[in-house]
Amino acid sequence: MKLYCATTNKGKLREFRLAAERFGGGIEIETVPGLERIEPPEEHGETFEENAIAKAVYYSRYAPGPLFADDSGLEVDALGGDPGVRSARYAGPGATDAENNRLLLEQMRGAKNRAARFVCVVALAERGRLLGSFRGTVEGQLLEAPRGENGFGYDPLFYYPPFGCSLAEASAEQKLSVSHRGKAIEAMLRWLAGGRARAG
Amino acid sequence: MKLYCATTNKGKLREFRLAAERFGGGIEIETVPGLERIEPPEEHGETFEENAIAKAVYYSRYAPGPLFADDSGLEVDALGGDPGVRSARYAGPGATDAENNRLLLEQMRGAKNRAARFVCVVALAERGRLLGSFRGTVEGQLLEAPRGENGFGYDPLFYYPPFGCSLAEASAEQKLSVSHRGKAIEAMLRWLAGGRARAG
Repeated sequence: MKLYCATTNKGKLREFRLAAERFGGGIEIETVPGLERIEPPEEHGETFEENAIAKAVYYSRYAPGPLFADDSGLEVDALGGDPGVRSARYAGPGATDAENNRLLLEQMRGAKNRAARFVCVVALAERGRLLGSFRGTVEGQLLEAPRGENGFGYDPLFYYPPFGCSLAEASAEQKLSVSHRGKAIEAMLRWLAGGRARAG
Repeated sequence: MKLYCATTNKGKLREFRLAAERFGGGIEIETVPGLERIEPPEEHGETFEENAIAKAVYYSRYAPGPLFADDSGLEVDALGGDPGVRSARYAGPGATDAENNRLLLEQMRGAKNRAARFVCVVALAERGRLLGSFRGTVEGQLLEAPRGENGFGYDPLFYYPPFGCSLAEASAEQKLSVSHRGKAIEAMLRWLAGGRARAG
């Protein structure tokens, strides 16, 4: 089946497609032609769920089949859960990954408690109606300097103890097998594959 | 394990306990002592997810273990999805089931399209941190007069075609096996029982 995706972020899209391939079942992830020309809804939610749901419901009106949208970010315990839903724009609107990473390192200078988690919520909707939302998280520790060239976002600062390296040092396959995004999308694909008739 | 529940609605609590019993695995659903004396968060969300999540995160700070909260309601196609998140207060703050049912019948007088669905979202949180949310729905048709004495809320007006009766004419067991609430709680219990380590 074809599953439409609201993201225009190439890094995320790559991860979604890799996850669908790993899961099997012949699910193809497609973007919606012309989506980048549609005025996006504002992301004012206080939770990843609110933002992912708003995007999925909104964009699903423009898709010929079920569509999912994601919202994700980094929660840092020492910063009271920041940057959270503001992760992508932590250093300001349109901030680059490098600027956001720099600001995070500054905020964390000298912090003893470096526990953090990535959170991803994927929401699934069809013709303007929400079908469900699926959450995945991964727990790690913030490094004091970036490590690795893979991934994107805060990956270079996110040390994942079971791997003994940052998520930017892991391969795409490795990262996806443990990541917030990998878990959220897998939960959605499991639901689509088996649970939909019962859960829906 | 003990699972705490934020609801003070006896009808819902009964359904949650019955669902846990059916599911097995020794999960006991407990209320939080003194919860009714804690100032509740306001329910201003535009989605069931927002309200369920706000309640779960808030009340979980007062519970000694994982706590869930639900938000649920009736979406009527001919009313553009109303009463939706306002189902419990459709006829005004503190409205009774009978008042809400009466208003719904009035609004639907003469409507040809009587398609409606119950939606339930259960959100699960622990010590102020959201673990996930789980959605269940059930599709039906609105009757032109109430039928049956079981259940609560809009059940007497909700005709469920596979049963050939309203949800207020079905037994509690029957209703739970197909209901929005039954499906949402089952999704949460499945996640707790098996998927938590992987999904979490």
